[in-house]
Amino acid sequence: MRNIMIKIEYDGTNYNGWQIQPNGITIQEKIMKAIKRLTGENINLHGSGRTDAKVHAREQVANFYTNSNIPTKRFAVAINHFLPQDIAIMEANEMPMEFHARYWAIGKAYSYQIHNFPQRSALLRNYSYHIPYSLDMEKIEKAAAIFIGTHDFKGFMSSGSSVKNTNRTIHDIKIEKEKDRIWITFEGNGFLYNMVRIMVGTLVEIGSNKRDLAKAREALETGGRNKAGHLAPAQGLFLDKVFYPLTR
Amino acid sequence: MRNIMIKIEYDGTNYNGWQIQPNGITIQEKIMKAIKRLTGENINLHGSGRTDAKVHAREQVANFYTNSNIPTKRFAVAINHFLPQDIAIMEANEMPMEFHARYWAIGKAYSYQIHNFPQRSALLRNYSYHIPYSLDMEKIEKAAAIFIGTHDFKGFMSSGSSVKNTNRTIHDIKIEKEKDRIWITFEGNGFLYNMVRIMVGTLVEIGSNKRDLAKAREALETGGRNKAGHLAPAQGLFLDKVFYPLTR
Repeated sequence: MRNIMIKIEYDGTNYNGWQIQPNGITIQEKIMKAIKRLTGENINLHGSGRTDAKVHAREQVANFYTNSNIPTKRFAVAINHFLPQDIAIMEANEMPMEFHARYWAIGKAYSYQIHNFPQRSALLRNYSYHIPYSLDMEKIEKAAAIFIGTHDFKGFMSSGSSVKNTNRTIHDIKIEKEKDRIWITFEGNGFLYNMVRIMVGTLVEIGSNKRDLAKAREALETGGRNKAGHLAPAQGLFLDKVFYPLTR
Repeated sequence: MRNIMIKIEYDGTNYNGWQIQPNGITIQEKIMKAIKRLTGENINLHGSGRTDAKVHAREQVANFYTNSNIPTKRFAVAINHFLPQDIAIMEANEMPMEFHARYWAIGKAYSYQIHNFPQRSALLRNYSYHIPYSLDMEKIEKAAAIFIGTHDFKGFMSSGSSVKNTNRTIHDIKIEKEKDRIWITFEGNGFLYNMVRIMVGTLVEIGSNKRDLAKAREALETGGRNKAGHLAPAQGLFLDKVFYPLTR
């Protein structure tokens, strides 16, 4: 028995998110079925965490146990053969048996793309949030800084999560703008349900003078969801990386 | 009567190219129908040139004559309302009556994206040429230089074109690489049918030691199509810009 870790890229546009479910096609299901076709085994695929419908991944991580004798190096190409074109295994590695993609993760990086131009974009339609009005980038930069550090992000979580501890640490937020495209990158030890998208919605509202920075601070202090901004749409979000300790 | 010039972005993935035709859905047709729905007029839309099936545009240019009294500024949003999400009018301007998107064009810029990584990409599947083996970037740089200047590019043209003068001037070729992505940008006074894709195919073969630089030189000198490389796939190609004289 081997424990195989895979790194996965996907275009979430046509999926009902990562996690397998009775209704709707999911990425986890597609990969489990591809592995079944490859090795004949009904494996259980452990992802580092879920992503919502239409959310993309540049590098999602998952692991599974297999008795197959396919060389580890060949796993990526072999699984890809049975996957649709919008899901791709980038790399496969053999890990210690105890490795678990979710429990071992110590952090994640997400990025969010905004298309800031009066007209909508044809090429970015599935990969960005279209904001047709102008944004005050200085205000956004300033507001993003309040999220950095350890805070109770309860106000930045959608309902429907059963998580009890809502403290999270954000190590870094980077904001880049080039012409009509804005990328906001978040790195942290973990993120609550919809946390990145609500932070982005809050930043967009602050940058367009629809919400005060003071209100966002209040959301952090009181945990009131109504003090934070709207949920930015799913299609602008990318899971960029999952971090693991080098040794454990 | 006004002469309206529009700048268009499109994702060519689901189209049979720019030019209207009896079979298959085209971008020109979609825009003409959208304008018909907006103004009630059966206009003729003059594009700067054709693009093939699956080829994209960051900024295609076209013009049409209209008697509508819609303010020029509002044309982009108004036409977009009747267009599918993968075609977007970015800008509309009123031009002198003599302006013609094709006849007035003095140059074009194209870019071509290569995804150079052992595994295929889910996110770039419709926007790049997947090259799984390694490429010698120095060789590619050196080979690209031979195209710059005025040459007879007959050897770099697909059959099916009725063009008589096959001389073209390439002003500049830029090659950029970032991680597993390579962009090759071409700027010139005009391009023959499939010329950019055949130049890219030739550069890829040279970069992977499948074709000698001398062969490519011969293709330029003799006009022999068989001396040049293969036709790189359509989905990696983007029409980036069409150039017009500031005054005429």
